[in-house]
Amino acid sequence: MKNWLLICLALMCGICHAQTANWRIPQQDNLVYLQLDTGTVAIELAPFMAPNHVKQFKALVREGFYDGLDFYRVIDGFVAQAGDISEQKASENKAPLKAEFTRSLSTDDSFRLVQSPAFLAAQTGILHGFAAGRDPQDKVEWLLHCYGVVAMARSNDINSGTTDFYINIGQAPRHLDRNMSVFGRVIYGMQHVQAVNRGEPNNGGVIDDPDKRSKILSAHVGSDLSTDQQLKLHVQNEFGEQYANKLASSRSLDNPFFHYKGTGNIDVCYRGVTSELISDNVPAKQN
Amino acid sequence: MKNWLLICLALMCGICHAQTANWRIPQQDNLVYLQLDTGTVAIELAPFMAPNHVKQFKALVREGFYDGLDFYRVIDGFVAQAGDISEQKASENKAPLKAEFTRSLSTDDSFRLVQSPAFLAAQTGILHGFAAGRDPQDKVEWLLHCYGVVAMARSNDINSGTTDFYINIGQAPRHLDRNMSVFGRVIYGMQHVQAVNRGEPNNGGVIDDPDKRSKILSAHVGSDLSTDQQLKLHVQNEFGEQYANKLASSRSLDNPFFHYKGTGNIDVCYRGVTSELISDNVPAKQN
Repeated sequence: MKNWLLICLALMCGICHAQTANWRIPQQDNLVYLQLDTGTVAIELAPFMAPNHVKQFKALVREGFYDGLDFYRVIDGFVAQAGDISEQKASENKAPLKAEFTRSLSTDDSFRLVQSPAFLAAQTGILHGFAAGRDPQDKVEWLLHCYGVVAMARSNDINSGTTDFYINIGQAPRHLDRNMSVFGRVIYGMQHVQAVNRGEPNNGGVIDDPDKRSKILSAHVGSDLSTDQQLKLHVQNEFGEQYANKLASSRSLDNPFFHYKGTGNIDVCYRGVTSELISDNVPAKQN
Repeated sequence: MKNWLLICLALMCGICHAQTANWRIPQQDNLVYLQLDTGTVAIELAPFMAPNHVKQFKALVREGFYDGLDFYRVIDGFVAQAGDISEQKASENKAPLKAEFTRSLSTDDSFRLVQSPAFLAAQTGILHGFAAGRDPQDKVEWLLHCYGVVAMARSNDINSGTTDFYINIGQAPRHLDRNMSVFGRVIYGMQHVQAVNRGEPNNGGVIDDPDKRSKILSAHVGSDLSTDQQLKLHVQNEFGEQYANKLASSRSLDNPFFHYKGTGNIDVCYRGVTSELISDNVPAKQN
Protein backbone atom coordinates (compact mmCIF):
# COMPACT_ATOMS: atom_id res chain seq x y z
CA MET A 1 0.00 0.00 0.00
CA LYS A 2 2.78 2.37 0.96
CA ASN A 3 4.69 1.56 -2.21
CA TRP A 4 1.59 2.02 -4.27
CA LEU A 5 1.15 5.48 -2.79
CA LEU A 6 4.75 6.35 -3.55
CA ILE A 7 4.36 5.20 -7.12
CA CYS A 8 1.21 7.28 -7.46
CA LEU A 9 2.95 10.35 -6.05
CA ALA A 10 5.89 9.81 -8.37
CA LEU A 11 3.55 9.56 -11.35
CA MET A 12 1.66 12.67 -10.27
CA CYS A 13 4.90 14.60 -9.91
CA GLY A 14 5.87 13.39 -13.36
CA ILE A 15 2.58 14.71 -14.69
CA CYS A 16 2.93 17.97 -12.78
CA HIS A 17 6.40 18.40 -14.17
CA ALA A 18 5.17 17.79 -17.71
CA GLN A 19 2.39 20.32 -17.22
CA THR A 20 4.65 22.99 -15.82
CA ALA A 21 7.78 22.63 -17.97
CA ASN A 22 9.76 25.84 -17.74
CA TRP A 23 10.59 25.95 -21.44
CA ARG A 24 9.00 24.99 -24.73
CA ILE A 25 10.54 24.45 -28.15
CA PRO A 26 9.04 26.64 -30.88
CA GLN A 27 8.15 24.85 -34.11
CA GLN A 28 10.49 25.64 -37.00
CA ASP A 29 7.42 25.89 -39.23
CA ASN A 30 6.31 28.80 -37.05
CA LEU A 31 9.62 30.68 -37.27
CA VAL A 32 10.88 33.12 -39.88
CA TYR A 33 14.59 33.89 -40.08
CA LEU A 34 15.80 37.22 -41.42
CA GLN A 35 19.43 37.32 -42.47
CA LEU A 36 20.75 40.85 -41.87
CA ASP A 37 24.25 42.25 -42.40
CA THR A 38 25.30 41.62 -38.82
CA GLY A 39 23.52 38.32 -38.13
CA THR A 40 20.36 36.27 -37.97
CA VAL A 41 17.02 37.38 -36.51
CA ALA A 42 14.38 34.77 -35.58
CA ILE A 43 10.70 35.73 -35.47
CA GLU A 44 8.12 33.49 -33.84
CA LEU A 45 4.75 33.87 -35.55
CA ALA A 46 1.31 34.31 -33.97
CA PRO A 47 -1.16 32.35 -36.12
CA PHE A 48 -3.49 32.09 -33.11
CA MET A 49 -4.06 35.86 -33.32
CA ALA A 50 -3.39 36.86 -36.93
CA PRO A 51 -3.75 33.72 -39.09
CA ASN A 52 -4.12 35.55 -42.40
CA HIS A 53 -1.18 37.84 -41.74
CA VAL A 54 0.97 34.86 -40.82
CA LYS A 55 -0.14 32.97 -43.93
CA GLN A 56 0.63 35.90 -46.24
CA PHE A 57 3.93 36.72 -44.53
CA LYS A 58 5.11 33.10 -44.87
CA ALA A 59 4.07 33.03 -48.51
CA LEU A 60 5.98 36.26 -49.17
CA VAL A 61 9.02 34.92 -47.35
CA ARG A 62 8.88 31.67 -49.34
CA GLU A 63 8.66 33.43 -52.71
CA GLY A 64 11.73 35.52 -51.81
CA PHE A 65 9.77 38.77 -51.74
CA TYR A 66 11.84 40.31 -48.94
CA ASP A 67 15.24 39.16 -50.20
CA GLY A 68 17.24 42.28 -51.01
CA LEU A 69 14.60 44.67 -49.67
CA ASP A 70 15.50 46.96 -46.80
CA PHE A 71 14.67 48.78 -43.57
CA TYR A 72 13.57 52.08 -45.11
CA ARG A 73 11.88 53.74 -42.11
CA VAL A 74 13.71 53.56 -38.82
CA ILE A 75 13.16 55.79 -35.80
CA ASP A 76 15.41 55.09 -32.85
CA GLY A 77 13.41 54.09 -29.78
CA PHE A 78 10.31 53.44 -31.88
CA VAL A 79 10.24 51.12 -34.91
CA ALA A 80 12.33 49.65 -37.72
CA GLN A 81 10.08 49.21 -40.76
CA ALA A 82 11.05 47.01 -43.68
CA GLY A 83 9.68 45.96 -47.02
CA ASP A 84 9.12 47.50 -50.41
CA ILE A 85 9.20 51.29 -50.19
CA SER A 86 8.43 51.53 -53.92
CA GLU A 87 5.24 49.46 -53.52
CA GLN A 88 5.98 48.31 -57.07
CA LYS A 89 7.47 44.87 -56.51
CA ALA A 90 5.22 42.25 -58.05
CA SER A 91 3.80 39.37 -56.05
CA GLU A 92 0.74 37.18 -56.01
CA ASN A 93 0.79 37.29 -52.23
CA LYS A 94 0.26 40.98 -51.55
CA ALA A 95 -3.50 41.30 -51.34
CA PRO A 96 -4.68 43.82 -48.71
CA LEU A 97 -5.28 41.97 -45.47
CA LYS A 98 -8.34 42.27 -43.30
CA ALA A 99 -7.36 43.70 -39.90
CA GLU A 100 -6.55 41.10 -37.22
CA PHE A 101 -6.19 43.46 -34.26
CA THR A 102 -8.04 41.37 -31.65
CA ARG A 103 -9.79 38.07 -31.26
CA SER A 104 -12.62 36.87 -29.02
CA LEU A 105 -11.57 35.91 -25.51
CA SER A 106 -9.98 32.48 -25.52
CA THR A 107 -11.85 29.87 -23.53
CA ASP A 108 -9.05 27.30 -23.38
CA ASP A 109 -7.12 28.75 -20.43
CA SER A 110 -4.30 29.80 -22.77
CA PHE A 111 -4.22 33.32 -21.25
CA ARG A 112 -1.83 33.55 -18.31
CA LEU A 113 -2.93 36.54 -16.25
CA VAL A 114 -0.15 38.84 -14.98
CA GLN A 115 -1.76 42.14 -14.02
CA SER A 116 -5.33 43.17 -13.26
CA PRO A 117 -6.30 45.92 -13.31
CA ALA A 118 -3.52 47.10 -15.60
CA PHE A 119 -2.76 50.59 -16.87
CA LEU A 120 -3.07 50.58 -20.64
CA ALA A 121 -5.51 47.64 -20.78
CA ALA A 122 -8.07 46.14 -18.40
CA GLN A 123 -5.88 43.08 -17.93
CA THR A 124 -2.47 42.02 -19.17
CA GLY A 125 -0.83 38.63 -19.34
CA ILE A 126 0.87 36.16 -21.64
CA LEU A 127 -0.76 34.35 -24.54
CA HIS A 128 1.33 31.63 -26.22
CA GLY A 129 4.51 33.50 -25.26
CA PHE A 130 3.30 36.93 -26.37
CA ALA A 131 2.45 39.74 -23.96
CA ALA A 132 -1.27 40.24 -24.37
CA GLY A 133 -4.14 42.43 -23.22
CA ARG A 134 -7.70 41.49 -22.35
CA ASP A 135 -10.89 43.44 -22.13
CA PRO A 136 -13.58 41.30 -20.45
CA GLN A 137 -16.16 44.00 -21.16
CA ASP A 138 -15.52 44.08 -24.91
CA LYS A 139 -14.79 40.33 -24.74
CA VAL A 140 -11.59 40.60 -26.76
CA GLU A 141 -7.88 39.90 -26.34
CA TRP A 142 -4.92 41.11 -28.37
CA LEU A 143 -1.12 41.20 -28.52
CA LEU A 144 0.74 44.13 -26.98
CA HIS A 145 3.29 46.29 -28.79
CA CYS A 146 6.21 45.30 -26.58
CA TYR A 147 9.89 45.44 -27.50
CA GLY A 148 10.61 43.08 -30.39
CA VAL A 149 7.02 42.71 -31.57
CA VAL A 150 6.43 42.44 -35.33
CA ALA A 151 3.31 43.92 -36.92
CA MET A 152 2.07 44.80 -40.39
CA ALA A 153 2.26 48.42 -41.50
CA ARG A 154 -0.85 49.97 -42.98
CA SER A 155 -2.39 53.25 -44.15
CA ASN A 156 -5.41 54.84 -42.40
CA ASP A 157 -7.58 52.05 -43.82
CA ILE A 158 -7.43 49.31 -41.21
CA ASN A 159 -7.64 46.66 -43.95
CA SER A 160 -4.72 47.96 -46.00
CA GLY A 161 -1.69 45.98 -44.73
CA THR A 162 0.02 43.97 -47.46
CA THR A 163 3.77 43.28 -47.20
CA ASP A 164 5.66 45.85 -45.14
CA PHE A 165 6.21 45.21 -41.46
CA TYR A 166 7.81 46.91 -38.48
CA ILE A 167 9.65 45.74 -35.39
CA ASN A 168 9.44 47.67 -32.09
CA ILE A 169 12.92 48.79 -31.02
CA GLY A 170 12.28 50.89 -27.91
CA GLN A 171 9.78 51.65 -25.18
CA ALA A 172 6.54 49.88 -26.07
CA PRO A 173 4.34 52.11 -28.32
CA ARG A 174 1.19 50.89 -26.60
CA HIS A 175 -1.10 53.33 -28.42
CA LEU A 176 -0.75 50.92 -31.36
CA ASP A 177 -2.37 48.09 -29.34
CA ARG A 178 -5.70 47.03 -30.88
CA ASN A 179 -4.82 49.28 -33.80
CA MET A 180 -2.36 47.12 -35.72
CA SER A 181 -2.14 43.47 -36.67
CA VAL A 182 0.64 41.99 -34.57
CA PHE A 183 1.69 38.70 -36.14
CA GLY A 184 5.05 37.84 -34.59
CA ARG A 185 7.83 38.71 -32.21
CA VAL A 186 11.59 38.49 -32.33
CA ILE A 187 12.84 35.69 -30.07
CA TYR A 188 16.47 35.87 -31.15
CA GLY A 189 18.78 38.52 -32.60
CA MET A 190 17.25 41.86 -31.52
CA GLN A 191 20.79 43.25 -31.42
CA HIS A 192 20.89 42.88 -35.21
CA VAL A 193 17.63 44.77 -35.57
CA GLN A 194 19.13 47.45 -33.30
CA ALA A 195 22.14 47.67 -35.59
CA VAL A 196 20.15 48.83 -38.64
CA ASN A 197 20.68 52.40 -39.84
CA ARG A 198 18.31 55.04 -38.51
CA GLY A 199 16.42 57.67 -40.46
CA GLU A 200 15.77 61.25 -39.42
CA PRO A 201 12.75 61.65 -37.13
CA ASN A 202 12.01 64.92 -38.95
CA ASN A 203 11.64 62.90 -42.15
CA GLY A 204 9.28 60.43 -40.46
CA GLY A 205 12.26 58.15 -40.09
CA VAL A 206 12.37 57.50 -43.85
CA ILE A 207 15.85 56.92 -45.25
CA ASP A 208 15.72 58.51 -48.68
CA ASP A 209 19.09 57.27 -49.88
CA PRO A 210 18.76 53.53 -50.66
CA ASP A 211 22.49 53.05 -50.06
CA LYS A 212 22.00 54.09 -46.44
CA ARG A 213 19.28 51.53 -45.75
CA SER A 214 20.17 48.25 -44.01
CA LYS A 215 19.23 45.28 -46.13
CA ILE A 216 17.36 42.03 -45.58
CA LEU A 217 19.81 39.70 -47.33
CA SER A 218 17.32 36.83 -47.22
CA ALA A 219 14.31 35.51 -45.32
CA HIS A 220 13.32 31.89 -44.75
CA VAL A 221 10.70 29.86 -42.97
CA GLY A 222 12.59 27.75 -40.43
CA SER A 223 11.21 24.41 -41.62
CA ASP A 224 12.52 25.12 -45.15
CA LEU A 225 16.10 25.26 -43.86
CA SER A 226 18.40 22.33 -43.29
CA THR A 227 18.83 21.34 -39.65
CA ASP A 228 22.30 22.87 -39.47
CA GLN A 229 20.87 26.22 -40.58
CA GLN A 230 18.15 26.26 -37.94
CA LEU A 231 18.58 27.89 -34.57
CA LYS A 232 17.93 25.63 -31.59
CA LEU A 233 15.86 27.94 -29.41
CA HIS A 234 13.56 27.58 -26.51
CA VAL A 235 11.02 29.97 -25.04
CA GLN A 236 10.06 30.29 -21.40
CA ASN A 237 6.70 28.69 -20.63
CA GLU A 238 4.33 31.21 -19.09
CA PHE A 239 2.74 28.44 -17.04
CA GLY A 240 6.03 27.12 -15.66
CA GLU A 241 7.25 27.52 -12.11
CA GLN A 242 10.26 29.55 -13.25
CA TYR A 243 8.08 32.26 -14.76
CA ALA A 244 5.76 32.21 -11.74
CA ASN A 245 8.77 32.76 -9.49
CA LYS A 246 10.00 35.59 -11.69
CA LEU A 247 6.63 37.34 -11.43
CA ALA A 248 6.49 36.85 -7.68
CA SER A 249 9.95 38.29 -7.09
CA SER A 250 9.24 41.14 -9.54
CA ARG A 251 6.17 42.02 -7.53
CA SER A 252 7.85 41.95 -4.14
CA LEU A 253 11.44 42.94 -5.08
CA ASP A 254 12.44 40.72 -2.16
CA ASN A 255 16.15 41.01 -2.78
CA PRO A 256 18.64 42.93 -0.65
CA PHE A 257 19.62 44.94 -3.72
CA PHE A 258 16.29 46.77 -3.63
CA HIS A 259 15.95 49.59 -1.17
CA TYR A 260 12.52 50.65 -2.46
CA LYS A 261 10.07 47.79 -3.00
CA GLY A 262 7.93 49.30 -5.76
CA THR A 263 4.17 49.46 -6.15
CA GLY A 264 3.66 45.72 -6.63
CA ASN A 265 2.41 46.35 -10.16
CA ILE A 266 4.04 44.64 -13.13
CA ASP A 267 4.67 45.99 -16.62
CA VAL A 268 4.15 42.85 -18.69
CA CYS A 269 6.22 44.33 -21.54
CA TYR A 270 9.20 44.37 -19.19
CA ARG A 271 8.46 41.06 -17.45
CA GLY A 272 7.59 38.90 -20.45
CA VAL A 273 8.81 35.38 -21.08
CA THR A 274 12.39 35.11 -22.26
CA SER A 275 13.90 33.04 -25.04
CA GLU A 276 17.40 31.77 -25.65
CA LEU A 277 19.60 29.45 -27.64
CA ILE A 278 19.67 25.96 -26.16
CA SER A 279 22.86 25.16 -27.99
CA ASP A 280 25.44 27.72 -28.92
CA ASN A 281 25.71 26.53 -32.50
CA VAL A 282 25.45 29.54 -34.72
CA PRO A 283 23.70 28.37 -37.85
CA ALA A 284 25.33 28.29 -41.25
CA LYS A 285 24.65 31.53 -43.10
CA GLN A 286 21.61 31.30 -45.34
CA ASN A 287 21.78 32.32 -48.97
CA MET B 1 -6.61 103.88 -27.10
CA LYS B 2 -7.07 101.13 -29.68
CA ASN B 3 -3.39 101.27 -30.66
CA TRP B 4 -2.34 101.19 -27.04
CA LEU B 5 -4.42 98.04 -26.52
CA LEU B 6 -2.89 96.41 -29.57
CA ILE B 7 0.59 97.24 -28.33
CA CYS B 8 -0.25 95.77 -24.92
CA LEU B 9 -1.62 92.61 -26.50
CA ALA B 10 1.48 92.30 -28.66
CA LEU B 11 3.71 92.67 -25.60
CA MET B 12 1.67 90.13 -23.67
CA CYS B 13 1.89 87.68 -26.54
CA GLY B 14 5.61 88.24 -26.59
CA ILE B 15 5.75 87.42 -22.89
CA CYS B 16 3.48 84.40 -23.32
CA HIS B 17 5.65 83.15 -26.11
CA ALA B 18 8.78 83.56 -24.02
CA GLN B 19 7.18 81.71 -21.11
CA THR B 20 5.99 78.82 -23.21
CA ALA B 21 8.86 78.36 -25.65
CA ASN B 22 8.60 74.93 -27.20
CA TRP B 23 12.32 74.27 -27.01
CA ARG B 24 15.25 75.04 -24.73
CA ILE B 25 18.97 74.93 -25.40
CA PRO B 26 20.90 72.68 -22.99
CA GLN B 27 24.05 74.20 -21.53
CA GLN B 28 27.27 72.71 -22.92
CA ASP B 29 28.62 72.68 -19.36
CA ASN B 30 25.82 70.26 -18.50
CA LEU B 31 26.53 67.86 -21.39
CA VAL B 32 28.95 64.97 -21.63
CA TYR B 33 29.91 63.61 -25.04
CA LEU B 34 30.98 60.00 -25.45
CA GLN B 35 32.84 59.19 -28.63
CA LEU B 36 32.04 55.61 -29.64
CA ASP B 37 33.17 53.63 -32.68
CA THR B 38 30.09 54.50 -34.68
CA GLY B 39 29.52 58.10 -33.57
CA THR B 40 28.91 60.63 -30.82
CA VAL B 41 26.54 60.24 -27.88
CA ALA B 42 25.41 63.31 -25.90
CA ILE B 43 24.28 62.95 -22.28
CA GLU B 44 22.43 65.74 -20.49
CA LEU B 45 23.20 65.70 -16.79
CA ALA B 46 20.80 65.99 -13.85
CA PRO B 47 22.56 68.05 -11.16
CA PHE B 48 19.16 69.01 -9.72
CA MET B 49 18.65 65.37 -8.67
CA ALA B 50 22.10 63.86 -8.26
CA PRO B 51 24.57 66.73 -7.73
CA ASN B 52 27.36 64.60 -6.30
CA HIS B 53 27.09 61.98 -9.01
CA VAL B 54 27.19 64.68 -11.66
CA LYS B 55 30.20 66.33 -10.02
CA GLN B 56 32.14 63.06 -9.81
CA PHE B 57 31.17 61.95 -13.32
CA LYS B 58 32.34 65.27 -14.80
CA ALA B 59 35.60 65.07 -12.86
CA LEU B 60 36.18 61.52 -14.13
CA VAL B 61 35.39 62.60 -17.69
CA ARG B 62 37.77 65.56 -17.41
CA GLU B 63 40.66 63.47 -16.12
CA GLY B 64 40.22 61.05 -19.04
CA PHE B 65 39.18 58.17 -16.79
CA TYR B 66 36.73 56.68 -19.32
CA ASP B 67 38.95 57.13 -22.39
CA GLY B 68 39.72 53.66 -23.72
CA LEU B 69 37.42 51.88 -21.25
CA ASP B 70 34.53 49.84 -22.60
CA PHE B 71 30.97 48.58 -22.40
CA TYR B 72 31.66 45.33 -20.57
CA ARG B 73 28.14 44.31 -19.53
CA VAL B 74 25.45 44.61 -22.16
CA ILE B 75 22.08 42.86 -22.16
CA ASP B 76 19.92 43.56 -25.16
CA GLY B 77 16.65 45.20 -24.17
CA PHE B 78 17.99 46.08 -20.72
CA VAL B 79 21.24 48.01 -20.15
CA ALA B 80 24.66 48.78 -21.59
CA GLN B 81 27.10 49.20 -18.70
CA ALA B 82 30.48 50.86 -19.14
CA GLY B 83 33.51 51.72 -17.07
CA ASP B 84 36.38 49.88 -15.48
CA ILE B 85 35.60 46.18 -15.16
CA SER B 86 38.97 45.62 -13.42
CA GLU B 87 38.13 48.18 -10.72
CA GLN B 88 41.90 48.77 -10.65
CA LYS B 89 42.24 51.97 -12.65
CA ALA B 90 43.57 54.72 -10.39
CA SER B 91 41.78 58.00 -9.89
CA GLU B 92 41.34 60.63 -7.22
CA ASN B 93 37.71 60.96 -8.25
CA LYS B 94 36.36 57.51 -7.47
CA ALA B 95 35.19 57.79 -3.89
CA PRO B 96 32.01 55.81 -3.13
CA LEU B 97 29.04 58.11 -3.61
CA LYS B 98 26.17 58.56 -1.22
CA ALA B 99 22.93 57.42 -2.88
CA GLU B 100 20.95 60.14 -4.65
CA PHE B 101 17.84 58.13 -5.49
CA THR B 102 15.23 60.77 -4.66
CA ARG B 103 14.93 64.35 -3.47
CA SER B 104 12.29 66.22 -1.49
CA LEU B 105 9.34 67.42 -3.52
CA SER B 106 10.27 70.53 -5.45
CA THR B 107 8.32 73.62 -4.50
CA ASP B 108 9.25 75.72 -7.52
CA ASP B 109 6.67 74.37 -9.99
CA SER B 110 9.41 72.63 -11.94
CA PHE B 111 7.45 69.35 -11.98
CA ARG B 112 5.16 69.12 -15.00
CA LEU B 113 2.46 66.59 -14.14
CA VAL B 114 1.56 64.06 -16.86
CA GLN B 115 -0.27 61.19 -15.17
CA SER B 116 -2.00 60.82 -11.82
CA PRO B 117 -2.63 58.26 -10.57
CA ALA B 118 0.05 56.41 -12.49
CA PHE B 119 0.90 52.71 -12.46
CA LEU B 120 4.44 52.32 -11.18
CA ALA B 121 4.44 55.56 -9.16
CA ALA B 122 1.78 57.71 -7.53
CA GLN B 123 2.32 60.43 -10.12
CA THR B 124 4.51 60.79 -13.18
CA GLY B 125 5.60 63.85 -15.09
CA ILE B 126 8.59 65.73 -16.42
CA LEU B 127 11.28 67.41 -14.30
CA HIS B 128 13.81 69.52 -16.20
CA GLY B 129 13.36 67.34 -19.27
CA PHE B 130 13.59 64.02 -17.41
CA ALA B 131 10.65 61.68 -16.90
CA ALA B 132 10.05 61.73 -13.16
CA GLY B 133 7.93 60.17 -10.46
CA ARG B 134 6.37 61.74 -7.39
CA ASP B 135 5.09 60.36 -4.14
CA PRO B 136 3.17 63.08 -2.26
CA GLN B 137 2.79 60.73 0.72
CA ASP B 138 6.54 60.07 1.08
CA LYS B 139 7.13 63.69 -0.11
CA VAL B 140 9.80 62.67 -2.62
CA GLU B 141 10.40 62.84 -6.37
CA TRP B 142 12.87 60.94 -8.52
CA LEU B 143 13.92 60.27 -12.10
CA LEU B 144 12.46 57.28 -13.95
CA HIS B 145 14.47 54.57 -15.66
CA CYS B 146 13.19 55.35 -19.14
CA TYR B 147 14.93 54.51 -22.43
CA GLY B 148 18.24 56.38 -22.64
CA VAL B 149 18.57 57.16 -18.95
CA VAL B 150 22.07 57.07 -17.43
CA ALA B 151 22.61 55.89 -13.84
CA MET B 152 25.50 54.81 -11.64
CA ALA B 153 26.05 51.09 -11.11
CA ARG B 154 26.47 49.88 -7.54
CA SER B 155 26.69 46.76 -5.38
CA ASN B 156 24.06 45.88 -2.75
CA ASP B 157 25.34 48.77 -0.64
CA ILE B 158 23.29 51.76 -1.78
CA ASN B 159 26.29 54.05 -1.18
CA SER B 160 28.75 52.10 -3.31
CA GLY B 161 28.57 53.73 -6.77
CA THR B 162 31.92 55.11 -7.95
CA THR B 163 32.68 55.23 -11.69
CA ASP B 164 30.76 52.67 -13.73
CA PHE B 165 27.47 53.65 -15.30
CA TYR B 166 24.73 52.09 -17.40
CA ILE B 167 22.39 53.31 -20.10
CA ASN B 168 18.90 51.85 -20.53
CA ILE B 169 18.54 50.35 -24.01
CA GLY B 170 15.06 48.75 -23.95
CA GLN B 171 11.73 48.74 -22.18
CA ALA B 172 12.08 50.87 -19.05
CA PRO B 173 13.36 48.75 -16.08
CA ARG B 174 11.13 50.62 -13.66
CA HIS B 175 11.95 48.37 -10.69
CA LEU B 176 15.21 50.33 -10.55
CA ASP B 177 13.34 53.59 -9.86
CA ARG B 178 14.15 54.95 -6.39
CA ASN B 179 16.83 52.25 -6.22
CA MET B 180 19.59 53.77 -8.32
CA SER B 181 21.13 57.21 -8.74
CA VAL B 182 20.02 58.49 -12.13
CA PHE B 183 22.29 61.35 -13.13
CA GLY B 184 21.72 61.88 -16.85
CA ARG B 185 19.99 60.87 -20.04
CA VAL B 186 21.06 60.49 -23.63
CA ILE B 187 19.62 63.29 -25.74
CA TYR B 188 21.51 62.44 -28.92
CA GLY B 189 23.04 59.31 -30.46
CA MET B 190 21.14 56.41 -28.85
CA GLN B 191 21.66 54.49 -32.11
CA HIS B 192 25.37 54.40 -31.26
CA VAL B 193 24.65 52.99 -27.81
CA GLN B 194 22.41 50.40 -29.51
CA ALA B 195 25.30 49.45 -31.78
CA VAL B 196 27.57 48.27 -28.94
CA ASN B 197 28.28 44.55 -28.72
CA ARG B 198 26.02 42.48 -26.47
CA GLY B 199 27.02 39.96 -23.84
CA GLU B 200 25.32 36.67 -23.08
CA PRO B 201 22.33 37.03 -20.72
CA ASN B 202 23.38 33.72 -19.15
CA ASN B 203 26.67 35.36 -18.21
CA GLY B 204 24.87 38.35 -16.66
CA GLY B 205 25.60 40.19 -19.91
CA VAL B 206 29.31 40.35 -19.10
CA ILE B 207 31.59 40.20 -22.15
CA ASP B 208 34.61 38.26 -20.93
CA ASP B 209 36.75 38.80 -24.01
CA PRO B 210 38.00 42.42 -23.93
CA ASP B 211 38.38 42.40 -27.71
CA LYS B 212 34.65 41.89 -28.08
CA ARG B 213 33.74 44.90 -25.94
CA SER B 214 32.79 48.18 -27.65
CA LYS B 215 35.05 51.00 -26.54
CA ILE B 216 34.58 54.53 -25.29
CA LEU B 217 37.20 56.21 -27.46
CA SER B 218 36.96 59.43 -25.45
CA ALA B 219 34.63 61.43 -23.21
CA HIS B 220 34.41 65.21 -22.84
CA VAL B 221 32.37 67.83 -21.04
CA GLY B 222 30.72 69.90 -23.77
CA SER B 223 32.05 73.25 -22.55
CA ASP B 224 35.63 71.93 -22.79
CA LEU B 225 35.25 71.38 -26.54
CA SER B 226 35.71 73.97 -29.24
CA THR B 227 32.48 75.30 -30.74
CA ASP B 228 32.89 73.27 -33.92
CA GLN B 229 33.10 70.09 -31.85
CA GLN B 230 29.92 70.80 -29.91
CA LEU B 231 26.54 69.51 -31.03
CA LYS B 232 23.88 72.19 -31.46
CA LEU B 233 20.94 70.51 -29.76
CA HIS B 234 17.65 71.59 -28.34
CA VAL B 235 15.27 69.80 -26.02
CA GLN B 236 11.49 70.08 -26.00
CA ASN B 237 10.20 72.27 -23.17
CA GLU B 238 7.76 70.35 -21.00
CA PHE B 239 5.84 73.56 -20.35
CA GLY B 240 5.53 74.50 -24.02
CA GLU B 241 2.35 74.34 -26.07
CA GLN B 242 3.86 71.75 -28.39
CA TYR B 243 4.36 69.25 -25.59
CA ALA B 244 0.90 70.02 -24.16
CA ASN B 245 -0.61 69.27 -27.56
CA LYS B 246 1.37 66.07 -27.83
CA LEU B 247 0.02 64.89 -24.47
CA ALA B 248 -3.53 65.85 -25.37
CA SER B 249 -3.48 63.96 -28.66
CA SER B 250 -1.75 61.00 -26.99
CA ARG B 251 -4.56 60.84 -24.47
CA SER B 252 -7.38 61.05 -26.98
CA LEU B 253 -5.76 59.39 -30.05
CA ASP B 254 -7.98 61.76 -32.03
CA ASN B 255 -6.54 60.84 -35.40
CA PRO B 256 -8.29 58.82 -38.11
CA PHE B 257 -5.41 56.33 -38.00
CA PHE B 258 -6.57 55.06 -34.63
CA HIS B 259 -9.46 52.65 -34.59
CA TYR B 260 -9.22 51.99 -30.84
CA LYS B 261 -8.84 55.10 -28.70
CA GLY B 262 -6.94 53.62 -25.75
CA THR B 263 -7.52 54.02 -22.03
CA GLY B 264 -6.59 57.70 -21.85
CA ASN B 265 -3.61 56.86 -19.67
CA ILE B 266 -0.11 57.93 -20.66
CA ASP B 267 3.18 56.09 -20.19
CA VAL B 268 5.53 59.00 -19.53
CA CYS B 269 8.52 56.90 -20.59
CA TYR B 270 6.98 56.68 -24.05
CA ARG B 271 5.66 60.24 -24.20
CA GLY B 272 8.65 62.14 -22.84
CA VAL B 273 10.09 65.34 -24.27
CA THR B 274 12.13 64.90 -27.42
CA SER B 275 15.48 66.35 -28.39
CA GLU B 276 17.09 66.98 -31.74
CA LEU B 277 19.89 68.67 -33.60
CA ILE B 278 19.04 72.25 -34.47
CA SER B 279 21.69 72.32 -37.14
CA ASP B 280 22.78 69.32 -39.08
CA ASN B 281 26.46 69.99 -38.54
CA VAL B 282 28.06 66.80 -37.33
CA PRO B 283 30.83 67.83 -34.99
CA ALA B 284 34.50 67.27 -35.72
CA LYS B 285 35.59 63.98 -34.18
CA GLN B 286 37.06 64.42 -30.73
CA ASN B 287 40.43 62.93 -29.85
